[in-house]
Formats: sequence, structure tokens, C-alpha cells
Amino acid sequence: MLVDVNKNPIVKTQSAELFSVLNPLVMDCGTTLSPVSVAYETYGELNAARDNAVLVCHALTGSAHAAGFSSDDPTSLPSSGWKSTGWWEPFIGEGRALDTSKYFVISSNFLGGCYGTTGSSSINPKTGKPYGLTFPQMTVRDMVRVQKALIDFLGVKQLRTIVGGSLGGMQVLEWALMFPNLIRSIIPIATASQHSPWCIGLNDIARQAIMNDPHWRNGDYYNFGQPEKGLSIARQIAMMSYRSDVSFLQRFHRDRLKTNGKANEARFDPANIFQVESYLHYQGKKLVERFDANTYLYITYAMDLHDVAFGRGEVNEVLASISVPSLNIGIDTDVLYPAHEQKEIASHIPHSMYCEIKTPFGHDAFLIEYDQLSRFVKEFFASNSL
Amino acid sequence: MLVDVNKNPIVKTQSAELFSVLNPLVMDCGTTLSPVSVAYETYGELNAARDNAVLVCHALTGSAHAAGFSSDDPTSLPSSGWKSTGWWEPFIGEGRALDTSKYFVISSNFLGGCYGTTGSSSINPKTGKPYGLTFPQMTVRDMVRVQKALIDFLGVKQLRTIVGGSLGGMQVLEWALMFPNLIRSIIPIATASQHSPWCIGLNDIARQAIMNDPHWRNGDYYNFGQPEKGLSIARQIAMMSYRSDVSFLQRFHRDRLKTNGKANEARFDPANIFQVESYLHYQGKKLVERFDANTYLYITYAMDLHDVAFGRGEVNEVLASISVPSLNIGIDTDVLYPAHEQKEIASHIPHSMYCEIKTPFGHDAFLIEYDQLSRFVKEFFASNSL
Repeated sequence: MLVDVNKNPIVKTQSAELFSVLNPLVMDCGTTLSPVSVAYETYGELNAARDNAVLVCHALTGSAHAAGFSSDDPTSLPSSGWKSTGWWEPFIGEGRALDTSKYFVISSNFLGGCYGTTGSSSINPKTGKPYGLTFPQMTVRDMVRVQKALIDFLGVKQLRTIVGGSLGGMQVLEWALMFPNLIRSIIPIATASQHSPWCIGLNDIARQAIMNDPHWRNGDYYNFGQPEKGLSIARQIAMMSYRSDVSFLQRFHRDRLKTNGKANEARFDPANIFQVESYLHYQGKKLVERFDANTYLYITYAMDLHDVAFGRGEVNEVLASISVPSLNIGIDTDVLYPAHEQKEIASHIPHSMYCEIKTPFGHDAFLIEYDQLSRFVKEFFASNSL
Repeated sequence: MLVDVNKNPIVKTQSAELFSVLNPLVMDCGTTLSPVSVAYETYGELNAARDNAVLVCHALTGSAHAAGFSSDDPTSLPSSGWKSTGWWEPFIGEGRALDTSKYFVISSNFLGGCYGTTGSSSINPKTGKPYGLTFPQMTVRDMVRVQKALIDFLGVKQLRTIVGGSLGGMQVLEWALMFPNLIRSIIPIATASQHSPWCIGLNDIARQAIMNDPHWRNGDYYNFGQPEKGLSIARQIAMMSYRSDVSFLQRFHRDRLKTNGKANEARFDPANIFQVESYLHYQGKKLVERFDANTYLYITYAMDLHDVAFGRGEVNEVLASISVPSLNIGIDTDVLYPAHEQKEIASHIPHSMYCEIKTPFGHDAFLIEYDQLSRFVKEFFASNSL
């Protein structure tokens, strides 16, 4: 995203230690964890009634830096000087769907992330070394528990809405079930109420690619450099599921990296790869530069564990117990969390409204199709007096 | 598939050396190759006019063993004692769509395969060692050249039809363009006229998984054991694209391998994997036992090179030059070679008929939905007096 400092407010990621030895985080797996630090950003001002907050939940490889201009964004590339605007910039700001002249927007890196919140790449104070595979497996509910602590820390009394796509949407659904009295509405986008076997399969294959890399060393790679190729393959598998065949065809055709040379010879030149291959390799390389392989294992498994029905009853009844208004957004070309899955979720939530983004871009459209996304959200806010 | 020897005719794969040093195969890449042996099976009898033959083309990991009962089928598992019925058994035989009381059905392992036809795992007579990465990169057109030589060897004058799905369908389309005078019709199923960037991307990621396995050794692994984990990951990536989210949900739900134990504890037990994970690992393991990793690299790249327009002009005009009747079959849930792609191909072939398999099973439906497939083919034969 192009950076225009004049137009984008300068933001700085902040940090709060929310759980301590005396007050540890009690996780779903039964482990207690402390300390837990959380990286977060806020945009806009909390009102006097402390009830104009909106919580934004990020997806797999996201960070707290959702909006504004940051000069130390760990999700941007070293070549950019770590400078970037936020991952949901066109959606958050004055006059935008999440209007910062009206709302106090909160975004935090979730538990288990590698962008400032405690996770497997963080230093374990007991050993002085990164947790690695000794980090307890967190769940989406654990992520929500930490977000709830952040909301309390910030003095927020009520959230106007919680919004997120993909894994972000899973957090949104859990919020509605864990802390219904703190929220006035939810906006789950392109997500799952129970992670599907299809998605579990894709995540599992990505994890195998990481763990089969000789540099993974059972997760104890921090002194040696991480399993770059395995993490790259994992990312490329995911990228395939984030886009669609139509968008790939429109963008890459069957073009090659080099167009010179005799056609038949160029065809068999191993260096003359297809543009789509070059794109995927680049996407893999970019993630390797900014993300931790163990963290990828933990987060994808947290997604696989996601099941709003776990310990609560039948999924349809659990969804039916959501009492606040819900805007469910599907994407017509999403192969990962298909539109039919979003309609199904919406059909069980009593006060729900279903809208669909029309796009060739597949799952990633919630980070691309801002006109449609913003229109749906603004209408939802207006019709529910949010 | 259950084996009932009483019902399935016993078949044996045969071998023919079709190209020799004096008469080598001239390949698209410019290399000449000899000797080239071809593994093939036939079902039914060639008639006196030598014009009742039907050619069956297999897909990525298939073999010549398309029908009947074989006691030495290399595509079956060691645990089965190498016994199996053919991969298209319910489609070929007396009274079936490819009726062996009427047609002389020919099936061969294609060039570059690892089931008896010369390929990268074959011994190079010049070195006494497997070709490995010194094998020339074959194309789908090269495969068709070898099939043409087999047809000549068998004394066949004309093919009533050529039929195949996926990579098999690519061979079918090339046949119609390379040897139109030898054929009376074609049946391309769930295939591509030009391999799409989406499919190229999936193949490329699978190849990276193989090549990133430390046991791959730049393809020179034949004395050490092959890159099992990498080939397994490659297969699992492919399996995801051969099925559909709906079929996975129906089959696996979110079931775990073990159902005993306290629910919350079982949830965090690393050994208690999801059924879908277990299924994918098993699919990977099965392929590793029966397939060669270098061969997987070569065949997937031959698919990526597939482009009926290469060297011939615009794809629409090239397809429009196909003069024989064509039955184009799509699969409504196919994410790899989507139905819209099959309709597009059919729309350019002058004498084409489009039929669609309705199924939850995705791309693999051409190996599953025999009732629909057989009905379409029988109607096509009848309406074209084949």
C-alpha cells in the first residue's frame, strides 16, 4: 500500500502486560501463562461514556497495525524500512466505515502471535530462551480472553461492534458467546463456526511442509535461522486458497518470467519459470522475512481447534444463542470459507443480516474490496443505530 | 476396489519397444530418445477392418492397468499383494460404456511414467543407472507421439474415440490436433486446453515440497530411498484439489482419530489428530509406496507445459480446427479444472456436446460417478454411430 504520511495519521504500537505471575492467564488447555504482554494500537478517542469502542480482530499473519502510518511495523518488509500503513487502512479512519471521528477503534496482536504479543517466539522468562514448542497451545477462546483483558485495561465499558475476517471472524463469534453483555453487535466475515475438514487439511499440509524442513530442528531453530523453505511452501499453499483460479488467470495468464529467446527453447529453460510461480515464490519469501515458523504452526492449529460448539452443545443451538445483531459477510469466490458456509452461520443467528462481496479475488477480498465491505458495514451501523 | 476374479477378466500388462537407436523418439525439447519401451494393456478384440479401437488415456499417477484383474499391478499396494482391478474398471468391459464386446480398448502408461514406460526412473542403458534428472522433459505431445507408435504397432487403422480425464484429457485434445485423420471422435473430461496458472501454482508448490526434502538429493536418490515425506506432501496438496470441501465435510466432519478420553484433554493430545489429517497422511503414504518422486516432478511439469495453442496460433482458433465430434464432460464441484473451463473448451469445438457430472466429489468424480459418466458416453456413441 502506498504510504502518504500527510494523509495517514502516525501511529505507534503500544504494549501492556495484562497477566502476571499473581494473575496468570488460565488457558483452555489447562496451563496458566504469565507474563502475557499484548501489542495494540488504538485510533480515535474513547468517549466519556466509554461505550464507543470497536474491536478489530486480525487474521493468521496480521498484527496490531491495522491503520495509520507506522515507521516500525514488523509486518512490512526490511526493504521498506519497516514503514507501512495498516493492513485495513481503507476501512478505518475519518469518514471511513470504522469512522475514527465517532469510534474508538482497538486492534491488538492476538495471543500466540509474533508481533509483540506473547507467543512461541517470545522469550520465556524462566529459561531466557524462546518458548518454541514449549509454548502452550492457545485457542481462539484464549485469544478472546486476552482481548477482554485489554478492553478492561483500556477502560472500555462496551463495544459497539467486533469485526474481523477469516481467523478474525472466529474471534468475533467467540466474543459473542463468551462476553455477550459487553458487545452491541458483531461482524464476522468469511469465517467458520467450526473449522472445516477442508481447512484443517490445508493447514495440516502447511505444517508438514514446515516440519519437514531440515532447518526446523523440532522447533529449536532460533540460534540457527528458521526453516525458510518450509515456511515459504506453507505460505504458498495458503496463498492458493486465498485467491481464485479466475484472479490468477486474469493476472498471470501463462506468462513467463522472460519473454525473450526462441519460444521452444525458452519453454524448456528451467530459469524461465511461469509468472505465477515467481509470484508464489515471492509471497513465500516475503512471509519468511516477517513471520516465525513455530508461530505459524501454533496459529494454524488454534484455527483447527476452533469450534464454537465445543463444550457448549449443538452448533446450531449455540449460534442461535447469539443475542446481538450480526452482519455476516460472505465472498462469492471464496474457496476457503465459502459463501454457503457464511449463509449457514447467518441462518442460525437470530438477528443476522447476510451480505455478499462479489469479486474475482477469492478469500482475500475482505482485504481488497473496500467499497462493498464499507457499504455493508455503514448500512449495518445505520440500521442498528450503532 | 473389491476384486472378484470370477467377474473380472485376468489381464497382464505387456511391453513393446517402439523406438530404437536407429529410429529414436524426437521430442519437443529437441532431444532424441531411445530405446523407448511402452507398457500397455488391451481389452476386447481388434476387428477385421482394424477400426474398432478406443484409446484410454490415464492421469497423473495412473498406469496401463485400466480394467480387468491383474496380479502384478504396480499401482496397487504391497499389502494387497500387487493385486487389483483396473483404475477405470466400472467403465470398461462387456456391456459397459467402453463395451469390450464391441471395442478394442487400448490403455498404455504414458511416456515419462514409472509403470513400465520409459521415464526418469528407468535405467539409462548408456550409464546403467536411472535417468533421474538427466531424463529429457517430455510434453503431452511427446506422450501422444508414443501412443501413436503403439497404435501403429498394434495394427490399428482408426480409433473410434479417445477418452481421458485430467491429464488424460490433455492427451485427448492433442490427439485431435496431431492425428485428426486417425480418429473419429474425442471425449475430453475435466481437463484444460491450456494449463491454468492456478493449476501451475499447485503443481509448482508440490514440486517444491519434493525438492525441499533432504532425501531428494537433486534427484539422485535411487541408491538411498526416495524423498518420502516430500512426495507425501505433494500428494496431499493434490488430494485437496481432487476433492471438495463438501465431500470432506460429509466424510470426516471434525472427527478425531481417537474418541475416548476427556474431551478437553483429547483435544490437546498431539496423537489425537483429526480424521481428515489421518486420511491425508494415508493418501500420501500410499503414493510413496507406489510412485517415483522424480517422475512426479516430470509429469506435473509436462502438465504445466500443456498448451494446445503453443506454436499453432490462438487457442480459440486451434480448438475451432478440431473437426471430429467431441463430448466434453465437466464436473460441477471441480476446483482444479472447473466446469466453466470445460464449457469454454466445448464452445470453441464445432461439433461438441457438453455434459456435466453433478457430484459432491470434485475433480475425482470422473473416477467415481460411473452412472453419469457411462450414460453420457453411451449417448454420445449412439448419436454419432460410433
